[in-house]
Amino acid sequence: MPSQNRPLSETISRLKDAAGAGGWSEDQSEIAPHLVEWRDRYRGATPILLKPDSVPAISRIVSICASTGTPIVPQGGNTGLVGGQIPDMSGAQVLLCLKRLNRIRTIDIDAATMTVDSGCVLADIQRHADDSGLLFPLSLASEGSATMGGLISTNAGGTGVLAYGNTRELVLGLEAVLPDGRIWNGLRALRKDNTGYDLKQLLIGAEGTLGVVTAAVLKLFPKPTSIESAMVAVPSVADAIRLLSFARRSGGTVTAFELIPRIGLDFVLRHIPGTRAPLEQTHDWQVLIDVSLFGETQGGILQDTLVQAANTGLITDASVAQSNAQREAFWKIRDALSESQKPEGGSIKHDVSVPISSIPAFLDEATAAVTRAMPGARPVPFGHLGDGNIHYNVSQPVGMDKQAFLKRWSEINAIVHDLVHRFHGSISAEHGIGISKVDEITRYKAKTELDAMRAIKRALDPNNIMNPGKVVRI
Amino acid sequence: MPSQNRPLSETISRLKDAAGAGGWSEDQSEIAPHLVEWRDRYRGATPILLKPDSVPAISRIVSICASTGTPIVPQGGNTGLVGGQIPDMSGAQVLLCLKRLNRIRTIDIDAATMTVDSGCVLADIQRHADDSGLLFPLSLASEGSATMGGLISTNAGGTGVLAYGNTRELVLGLEAVLPDGRIWNGLRALRKDNTGYDLKQLLIGAEGTLGVVTAAVLKLFPKPTSIESAMVAVPSVADAIRLLSFARRSGGTVTAFELIPRIGLDFVLRHIPGTRAPLEQTHDWQVLIDVSLFGETQGGILQDTLVQAANTGLITDASVAQSNAQREAFWKIRDALSESQKPEGGSIKHDVSVPISSIPAFLDEATAAVTRAMPGARPVPFGHLGDGNIHYNVSQPVGMDKQAFLKRWSEINAIVHDLVHRFHGSISAEHGIGISKVDEITRYKAKTELDAMRAIKRALDPNNIMNPGKVVRI
Repeated sequence: MPSQNRPLSETISRLKDAAGAGGWSEDQSEIAPHLVEWRDRYRGATPILLKPDSVPAISRIVSICASTGTPIVPQGGNTGLVGGQIPDMSGAQVLLCLKRLNRIRTIDIDAATMTVDSGCVLADIQRHADDSGLLFPLSLASEGSATMGGLISTNAGGTGVLAYGNTRELVLGLEAVLPDGRIWNGLRALRKDNTGYDLKQLLIGAEGTLGVVTAAVLKLFPKPTSIESAMVAVPSVADAIRLLSFARRSGGTVTAFELIPRIGLDFVLRHIPGTRAPLEQTHDWQVLIDVSLFGETQGGILQDTLVQAANTGLITDASVAQSNAQREAFWKIRDALSESQKPEGGSIKHDVSVPISSIPAFLDEATAAVTRAMPGARPVPFGHLGDGNIHYNVSQPVGMDKQAFLKRWSEINAIVHDLVHRFHGSISAEHGIGISKVDEITRYKAKTELDAMRAIKRALDPNNIMNPGKVVRI
Repeated sequence: MPSQNRPLSETISRLKDAAGAGGWSEDQSEIAPHLVEWRDRYRGATPILLKPDSVPAISRIVSICASTGTPIVPQGGNTGLVGGQIPDMSGAQVLLCLKRLNRIRTIDIDAATMTVDSGCVLADIQRHADDSGLLFPLSLASEGSATMGGLISTNAGGTGVLAYGNTRELVLGLEAVLPDGRIWNGLRALRKDNTGYDLKQLLIGAEGTLGVVTAAVLKLFPKPTSIESAMVAVPSVADAIRLLSFARRSGGTVTAFELIPRIGLDFVLRHIPGTRAPLEQTHDWQVLIDVSLFGETQGGILQDTLVQAANTGLITDASVAQSNAQREAFWKIRDALSESQKPEGGSIKHDVSVPISSIPAFLDEATAAVTRAMPGARPVPFGHLGDGNIHYNVSQPVGMDKQAFLKRWSEINAIVHDLVHRFHGSISAEHGIGISKVDEITRYKAKTELDAMRAIKRALDPNNIMNPGKVVRI
């Protein structure tokens, strides 16, 4: 058992030795940016920032934490949205920043794999794959800062999920420092390996509560030779879902399928300079589709698909991008949907998913329930329709006081999340649990499953030092 | 704590009540086929065969086993190759057959998902998907008997892995009875869900040691509109790997890429009636390629790819199937590779994988090491090159006594497995650990990882009742 009444100062002195010269900081001005989440929703305190640049140093650090019962919070690019990377306010938790552990270790072009340190930034990994003629398809708004270790620990989603899967599907092997300080080398570059429990899958999405990810073997993919894009009007969300099935059967690889509602498009055209209506008429629902083509596949596939879809009444209008500039204009509308809500006042957000075929009913019921609770509230549901992952954002009623609106955040969340639960959905499709949803999740997840999670946490981290209080309380 | 000294007869009487009428058998003639693995390598004993047809009955059965400390062995179609589904010889383990739990629960065509009981046979699932215009891509030799629960519990591979992944990648949600008898409903049909540890991935590949899988939500895919096939001669295995990279970048989806050595082709042509040489000349190495096309993609993609490959010297000859009959003739050669070894005497087999780019060096060194240990031994390496999964079968020297050869099984295994380990490969790419490799794996897997596996097993199955002795000893 760890002796937890040893003075923290003695532990910190050992941690400094373990981290080595340049591997730690007590300078609060250097530490400060690591203690606040970028939207300022979560703040913490720590006596020391550890920033080792080697796996053995991390192993030494975690060993000391295990033997002294010192809680340790791993942090990558500090882009997480649920507070998982922020220590608590006690000042007793040490912060482990992985950003100096940032080498691309190897790339194997024939096998289409890359091995990277967990502190590598996603954009650097994408670039390195691209330079080698391959694609690493994970892509999200924070890719300029987010590190691979953080992306793995939160099983990041993003825009590539439809065709390539979540981060979980993109990792072949892991290296991690386990909660007792031992290094686990699971850096296998194998497509098939059935030799016991999949420890790798357990660490992916564990938000640093079962160990510190230090490296990963990533899957790479062929680069598409071209991407065809279109903005398409559909009579209903149900038709959008049918269009997705149809497009997937029609050749090419559907790599994006994003839902845009009338109100969202209106907001963008009203508030975002340089945008213009993508279609002649206005419509309740539109979809932005990308189809990727590989090799010498003949172009025009998306055009053909849409002509057929129009003939069967599945779509009411469409504009296929005729240039890169037009494609970028379509994507600018999609990417501005969240930002364009700001001039309209407060927005209460939800990171939810439901089974794809339940989306139409979920949207109808959510809008009815939210506007019943708050007449005039303006839901702006948009996003990754093909993943069942709708960003169910609610803009405030026109003229309402913004702070009065935002005070009802939890109430609106509960309405939407209860409904998500009824549709067998997830209240955290992409962002994870962190500290933000650690209590709320107990309302929705079966006790059986929470008990199993607790049993696993206790078994692998008996001293409860790894990012304690996140994901599951024990 | 369970009272383990209660008479087994009393427990059995309770288990019969729990299983209900028709849910059990003590008739040894009915039980016998469940107690032997189909190649007669593993045999066991049991006082009772439980064959419930409902999840609540399974829950009651496992609860009784948990409270009485009675070991229970789940079994699906009894097609496993490592003895995971066979009780030990003690006569103290009860056998739980899942085959009566065999309803297709629902299919959702728009969402491309199907929910099935774990006792459903794979061929029935494939057919049901096909009838709905979709593809369930899991496919292997035993698909007429293997059940979905067994396939999930062993994370089955097969011929579809290259394009669609292992079973692990094909399951969206699970329902299982956990080792304490509680039912865990994780039947989520979600493409994105980040709400804690992935219990589903832990149960997949756990070979029934962490619970009994009772149902699953499966991913379905668009059916290809056509498949182009070719038999291709390559100068070397390294060129075969380069050809795979090239073909993947060239359009269409490479859905099979199977290596065939000269000796394997010779055996087939010598022993299998109705086969003929696929190419004019003979070659050291050939590859059977399938490329799947979707929608209205224009045909001839594989032909174009091979013309380009020939121009750069990557291939030396090729024959593109001009008819379904010719395609079937190519596949008949591939499928007969194992069988055609039989008339040549004994064959020592290995279910191994290495990183794809290490295959050439691995094959060279393995052949050198095996023939050094046993002059005249004839390696016949073939199979799923694109997965790094080579069936490294070794036919006996000509004229050697078959039994004398087979006595050296473990010695040859050790030579090959040591080499696989040196190349960071897996000694069980597809079949799992079961009882067959439970001791051998401790020679290759890091203690860190085995300790973590044991900790998880103890945490979730503290009474060690779920298929004890398989996968990891505790």
